[in-house]
Amino acid sequence: VSAAGALPERMVETTVRVRYAETDAMGVVHHASYIVWMELGRTEALRASGLPYTAIEARGFFVVLSHLDVRYLASARYDDLVVVRAGLEAVRSRQVVFRYELRLAERGTVLVEARSEHIVVDRATGRPARLPEDLLGALRGGGAHG
Amino acid sequence: VSAAGALPERMVETTVRVRYAETDAMGVVHHASYIVWMELGRTEALRASGLPYTAIEARGFFVVLSHLDVRYLASARYDDLVVVRAGLEAVRSRQVVFRYELRLAERGTVLVEARSEHIVVDRATGRPARLPEDLLGALRGGGAHG
Amino acid sequence: VSAAGALPERMVETTVRVRYAETDAMGVVHHASYIVWMELGRTEALRASGLPYTAIEARGFFVVLSHLDVRYLASARYDDLVVVRAGLEAVRSRQVVFRYELRLAERGTVLVEARSEHIVVDRATGRPARLPEDLLGALRGGGAHG
Amino acid sequence: VSAAGALPERMVETTVRVRYAETDAMGVVHHASYIVWMELGRTEALRASGLPYTAIEARGFFVVLSHLDVRYLASARYDDLVVVRAGLEAVRSRQVVFRYELRLAERGTVLVEARSEHIVVDRATGRPARLPEDLLGALRGGGAHG
Repeated sequence: VSAAGALPERMVETTVRVRYAETDAMGVVHHASYIVWMELGRTEALRASGLPYTAIEARGFFVVLSHLDVRYLASARYDDLVVVRAGLEAVRSRQVVFRYELRLAERGTVLVEARSEHIVVDRATGRPARLPEDLLGALRGGGAHG
Repeated sequence: VSAAGALPERMVETTVRVRYAETDAMGVVHHASYIVWMELGRTEALRASGLPYTAIEARGFFVVLSHLDVRYLASARYDDLVVVRAGLEAVRSRQVVFRYELRLAERGTVLVEARSEHIVVDRATGRPARLPEDLLGALRGGGAHG
Repeated sequence: VSAAGALPERMVETTVRVRYAETDAMGVVHHASYIVWMELGRTEALRASGLPYTAIEARGFFVVLSHLDVRYLASARYDDLVVVRAGLEAVRSRQVVFRYELRLAERGTVLVEARSEHIVVDRATGRPARLPEDLLGALRGGGAHG
Repeated sequence: VSAAGALPERMVETTVRVRYAETDAMGVVHHASYIVWMELGRTEALRASGLPYTAIEARGFFVVLSHLDVRYLASARYDDLVVVRAGLEAVRSRQVVFRYELRLAERGTVLVEARSEHIVVDRATGRPARLPEDLLGALRGGGAHG
């Protein structure tokens, strides 16, 4: 891992089935639903890294969204299977960055490309905090720390 | 107030504008959206009673849904104005019951008729609890207690 | 199948992972989220019956919720796995009834017991309609019709 | 209006009361809820411009989100009043751009700053389209066209 905290990207895949409640009157998936699927992708990317998000909260931290950038390229529909690929782009003591790509499972059409920045917050005080070294190391895949 | 906790119904009205996110691919409002509007109706009915829900939580209690019965009679659409009428049907030390009627503001069409039962829970332990007499009295409109 | 349309219940199981977006400030799953999972259960129960809901819509019908009855018994939390059991209780030409039971996958705790009634609607006109015999037969599992 | 379609910004204010369903287990508003409020802000900004979104759809077009950029600066909580300021940044025949600022009504704390790009789509074919001159003119406030 570089000193800047950048990581070689390991994307983790999760598949979701589009729910009727996630569509809107345009007949396609509502744009906010993709944001929720990205969160699901983060959950699975963290679990695959060996540090589930529940373990981060159990240690007294929240990881809070600070910046979201989403490009919408095509639309999914009810009952489609959508593959959510999510991975850590950077892990720093005060900031975590994820990247995402969402595709239709069947045809491979790219639906969304996105990036999100998150800050670490102390669960008790709500103030910005630093992740301890062992959690940072776990997120970075057990390698040498930046 | 009768000993059984039944109340003469005072319905409180709240108006919501249908959001695109609340519709689905049938072109109408998704059925779960009405459930969220009913919750909004409860919030305003409690505020009008003089005991906002935030004050109940501040005193150490959660009021938790235990039973929901909803009849769907007609559908609202994007940008419709919907009038949510909500009122307390019964207030007991361990249980609160609400009634609802949702209508289209313009034509008066009844969309939903519903009833919900809630239990009182201790916020710290998560266990069933009793509302103290002063909160019960406030919910019952300051009159004699059942 | 009896003349009244009642069916021996064949419950179909679907597992959902609780999303952060599905929780609320009480720290548990928001009550409207279970309603959405029930819909997911219906989707999978229909698919297992051999007649996916998309095929019903492709034939020109919507199946629309008319009555919902939900008992909330316990709460799920973020990242829990929830098993949604859904099955057809009755299939009539103008009405379909589902039953549900939602449990925590790990401990088996029952979270929700529910029942929903649905009417059949013509997709073009929005008016109540009858399902044609072949669709009714498919929903009833290919047996003799009621 | 300049040839590039940029507009002097006229921000339109809408106030929303935070619903319990919009919070999450961190005790604050879930990040996807702000996205839905931004959509509500667009609806009111278009209505204030004299061209409600329903009128755009009635003319055969969808205005579809293509890019979303959101900065999260602070968190709202259940029952807070949030002021959503939304305005058109640019109106072009094939693209519409909005800007947003969301604040707590009481203290004025800025919660979110955001920008969204939208493309115009033919409602029947789903293909990119151009808004006709009269709709463009209405969006631009009735002034000379770019």
